[in-house]
Amino acid sequence: MTDFFTKLNTSIDKNNSLLCVGLDPVLSKLPAHLQNDDTPFFTFNKGLVDATADLVCAYKPNSAFYEALGPRGIEELKQTIQYINDTYPDIPVILDAKRADIGSTNEGYIDFTFDYLSVDAVTLHPYLGSEALAPFLALQGKGMIILCRTSNPGAAEFQDLLIDGQPLYEHVAREVASSWNTNRNCLIVVGATYPEEMAKIRGIVGPDMAFLVPGVGAQGGDIGAVMKAGIGNDKRGLIINSARDIIYADSSEHFAEAARTRALQTRDTINNYR
Amino acid sequence: MTDFFTKLNTSIDKNNSLLCVGLDPVLSKLPAHLQNDDTPFFTFNKGLVDATADLVCAYKPNSAFYEALGPRGIEELKQTIQYINDTYPDIPVILDAKRADIGSTNEGYIDFTFDYLSVDAVTLHPYLGSEALAPFLALQGKGMIILCRTSNPGAAEFQDLLIDGQPLYEHVAREVASSWNTNRNCLIVVGATYPEEMAKIRGIVGPDMAFLVPGVGAQGGDIGAVMKAGIGNDKRGLIINSARDIIYADSSEHFAEAARTRALQTRDTINNYR
Repeated sequence: MTDFFTKLNTSIDKNNSLLCVGLDPVLSKLPAHLQNDDTPFFTFNKGLVDATADLVCAYKPNSAFYEALGPRGIEELKQTIQYINDTYPDIPVILDAKRADIGSTNEGYIDFTFDYLSVDAVTLHPYLGSEALAPFLALQGKGMIILCRTSNPGAAEFQDLLIDGQPLYEHVAREVASSWNTNRNCLIVVGATYPEEMAKIRGIVGPDMAFLVPGVGAQGGDIGAVMKAGIGNDKRGLIINSARDIIYADSSEHFAEAARTRALQTRDTINNYR
Repeated sequence: MTDFFTKLNTSIDKNNSLLCVGLDPVLSKLPAHLQNDDTPFFTFNKGLVDATADLVCAYKPNSAFYEALGPRGIEELKQTIQYINDTYPDIPVILDAKRADIGSTNEGYIDFTFDYLSVDAVTLHPYLGSEALAPFLALQGKGMIILCRTSNPGAAEFQDLLIDGQPLYEHVAREVASSWNTNRNCLIVVGATYPEEMAKIRGIVGPDMAFLVPGVGAQGGDIGAVMKAGIGNDKRGLIINSARDIIYADSSEHFAEAARTRALQTRDTINNYR
């Protein structure tokens, strides 16, 4: 299987895009004609993917939206991922699951993520440290995306606490870059809503490490500020996620075309700063 | 529905127990006669629960072990919880899922945990702060169990970083006790493997807040040290979890009786220090 980083760079180049589309379905927000579909999430996602597959560098389903429906939701998550893997094999799929447990327990999450779902990358909490995450960090060719500076308004509560004069999120960035990344498979999450922090993190981790950047679109992050603060080597290094703003651009039968239009605008806005 | 704290105190008193049994099935470790069972996890768990229901204050399935099997595992997790809820309505079920996302996304995890699975409490990562966890913290009568000092050997990597002379885990404990707990529904996770840290945390949060304590049994935590460091008001305040040591005490058809024997020993060892 092609490794995550190869797929990512292939999609970035082929689609001239740093845009990631978040596949975050909520039943009550789906177009009316899908409400009684047998597989509403899959049908919705398939429409979105087919309409945007030439415009993105990655897709990012967030596990929470699928788990909300129980096993039926998990099955539609798997269907969605399998469809992308089969139909668009160059486009990596990131599972936004924000997992992390002690070492032996993480094996269960690895089975879920990489064996059952067959995604290319997963998001992880840093709080338990690298010893606990070792089973993830050992997986070469998959992307391990560590939460560093999250996009939410209250991110500062712990992430800004000062340790030797530097905030916790900088320590996380430094540890990930300097000692967790021996298999060259680490990325970090930096919210678009914090461009000043992003610039500091880019300085700490260097130009090679990629950032997953949530927070543009509905959360209000500024694309120009993100690009200035975070762009890496070869005009890559950013995976800029937008979900609600794109996938719910229209709630009629034309949702997919409307999503394409918004995705195209967002990709091009990103490229204007590239 | 009876609230988590009422169920917990009822079970503690009725069963004279601070023991929580971790329901963490792994297919390859199950007794041979269950390997080809239609619902191996449920059948294993039912045997364990029926053999120990008069000895525990709670059960704690860890979501990772069920997710490892995909939707089929999630269904067996639900079956297990429903069986406990129906058969032993006084015993609370804690889902060890270690979730946490931004606020709007946490609604999906709440649907999974409290609507679909119908558990009484859930474990949560603190890294995104209370603003992100607000949808969880708003749920009165359910238990929100925040990771504070985890049981793994590498827990210190971030949790011991000093902020104004005090380690991060103490800041988490203080924040949870002083500002997250307005609905009186917070607990914290403190590993049995760190009794010194546990004593400091007890001093910070006071005698009323309950600790979920993983790390006795296979992880090697000392019960006497835990009881001395962590016991709270009314000789309660500790939910001491053991999983592997009890559920895999025997791998024959007599696994349930062997689990009962180990659970009884563990409960009584805890009570010797109570």
